[in-house]
Amino acid sequence: MKKQEWNERVELIEKALVEHLGEKTALSSTLCDSMKYSLTAGGKRLRPILLMAAADAVGARGLDFMPVACAMEMIHTYSLIHDDLPAMDNDDYRRGKLTNHKLYGDGMAVLAGDALLTQAFEVILRQENVAPEVLVQVVREISIAAGPNGMVGGQAIDLESENKRIPMEELKKLHMGKTGALFRASLRCGAILGGADSEQLEKLTTYAESFGLAFQITDDILDVIGDEAEIGKPVGSDERNNKSTYVTLTSLETAQKLAQEAVDEGVAALDGFGEEAVFLQDLLKSMLNRKK
Amino acid sequence: MKKQEWNERVELIEKALVEHLGEKTALSSTLCDSMKYSLTAGGKRLRPILLMAAADAVGARGLDFMPVACAMEMIHTYSLIHDDLPAMDNDDYRRGKLTNHKLYGDGMAVLAGDALLTQAFEVILRQENVAPEVLVQVVREISIAAGPNGMVGGQAIDLESENKRIPMEELKKLHMGKTGALFRASLRCGAILGGADSEQLEKLTTYAESFGLAFQITDDILDVIGDEAEIGKPVGSDERNNKSTYVTLTSLETAQKLAQEAVDEGVAALDGFGEEAVFLQDLLKSMLNRKK
Repeated sequence: MKKQEWNERVELIEKALVEHLGEKTALSSTLCDSMKYSLTAGGKRLRPILLMAAADAVGARGLDFMPVACAMEMIHTYSLIHDDLPAMDNDDYRRGKLTNHKLYGDGMAVLAGDALLTQAFEVILRQENVAPEVLVQVVREISIAAGPNGMVGGQAIDLESENKRIPMEELKKLHMGKTGALFRASLRCGAILGGADSEQLEKLTTYAESFGLAFQITDDILDVIGDEAEIGKPVGSDERNNKSTYVTLTSLETAQKLAQEAVDEGVAALDGFGEEAVFLQDLLKSMLNRKK
Repeated sequence: MKKQEWNERVELIEKALVEHLGEKTALSSTLCDSMKYSLTAGGKRLRPILLMAAADAVGARGLDFMPVACAMEMIHTYSLIHDDLPAMDNDDYRRGKLTNHKLYGDGMAVLAGDALLTQAFEVILRQENVAPEVLVQVVREISIAAGPNGMVGGQAIDLESENKRIPMEELKKLHMGKTGALFRASLRCGAILGGADSEQLEKLTTYAESFGLAFQITDDILDVIGDEAEIGKPVGSDERNNKSTYVTLTSLETAQKLAQEAVDEGVAALDGFGEEAVFLQDLLKSMLNRKK
């Protein structure tokens, strides 16, 4: 997939996200507005892109799985809304826009997150041309990944680790849950929907885990060497906030080495997939040159 | 079902709820504790009881559908945790115990609710001996009922209606969402899992809607004529808080008449189901004598 094609997919995803919201039938128009506000507030749409790319990689047509791809983005968006709440990270801005609760109030933001999470499961089931047993498998993957043993579990560790140094093992658990689980589910669901055999599924899972790790380590590196204007927050804030990161717990050099290893491992996992997986390999390699 | 049998079912439900939490594998033990605290904090377990009773009513064995029944209770519990938050109703006590956020903090309470909702979908899929297409139908029913066009939508109307009088039509929408949708889904899912034909499903849906209405109206009546010790809050609080209820928007007499009508309609809907539906009919009739 070329940059142009990515942009086209992002446009299709954003169109589909709004369609799946279905605001006309909703009980509360404020709730709908609040959900839509965060869902249309931009972002890289990485999870739907990964889901579709995994389906492409196993020879299916990624775009055929738009409902499930949208559901992943809805779950990601709900997690951001709740994460920004005063009771959690207490952030006023995200991607240069007011956070949901700053605009709609804390109560409505809680409900907007709840609604996006719940509706995501409904949207998964709008997926057509997929056998019911495959849909059940997809719902299982996503509910486990987003739940207490996945994303929410990672967020809970994050909440408990505020302003304190945690051991590297705990940091890994935190990120495998908080960000890794949803990346992993996106790629695995794309593979499952695309009809992957068990070997392909295993390799895409290895790729997904490397992807999540590289994503997080490079995120931590950006906090040290990034451009403030591009990353949207002051550099060095992790160190000042006594936050445990791959950089603060090791060193910049070690973190860069770990990122390189993760990228190498993920790229190697897809050797043998051929042309269709080059996009995923390139995407992972590009992590090492992240600007934001 | 006799009182004794109900108590036995509640015991089985409470045992299954704890088993389905599966705390040993969770990432954060605090999150687990927080989920378990609210899930084991008592309550009538009305939604799982209704689900199983609907399956019984169509000639299946209600107890066979414990995982889905537990999922309904997990969703109900999550909604209570979020509803009690300072950003919502700001309640310190529920059923005589501290609310989740008073014990675990606002952030962890948000996450405990999120985790219970998400895990509920995983638990549904632990249901055995049910065809995948039936499970898909159950997930669809529940996600629609709990989402922005159901429970969360009703909560949003509730949040927007604080301290103001709303028209009767809006009050109906509020309750059909906030409490009615989950009752409806419980009965419909029990019927679907039990193999109901379309006529049975329709009649149980009518019963469910009558049940939800009678439940809410009698709740409002209790606020006026209930015993403070039994209902756990001062009588007359709705009137003083300028809350819109079936009583404040009409009169006590009209509300009692509406409750009677709802009960009659729901009981009549199950005429012809025979012996197996007597429990549901009796349960609905008992609404008129609610003490709490």
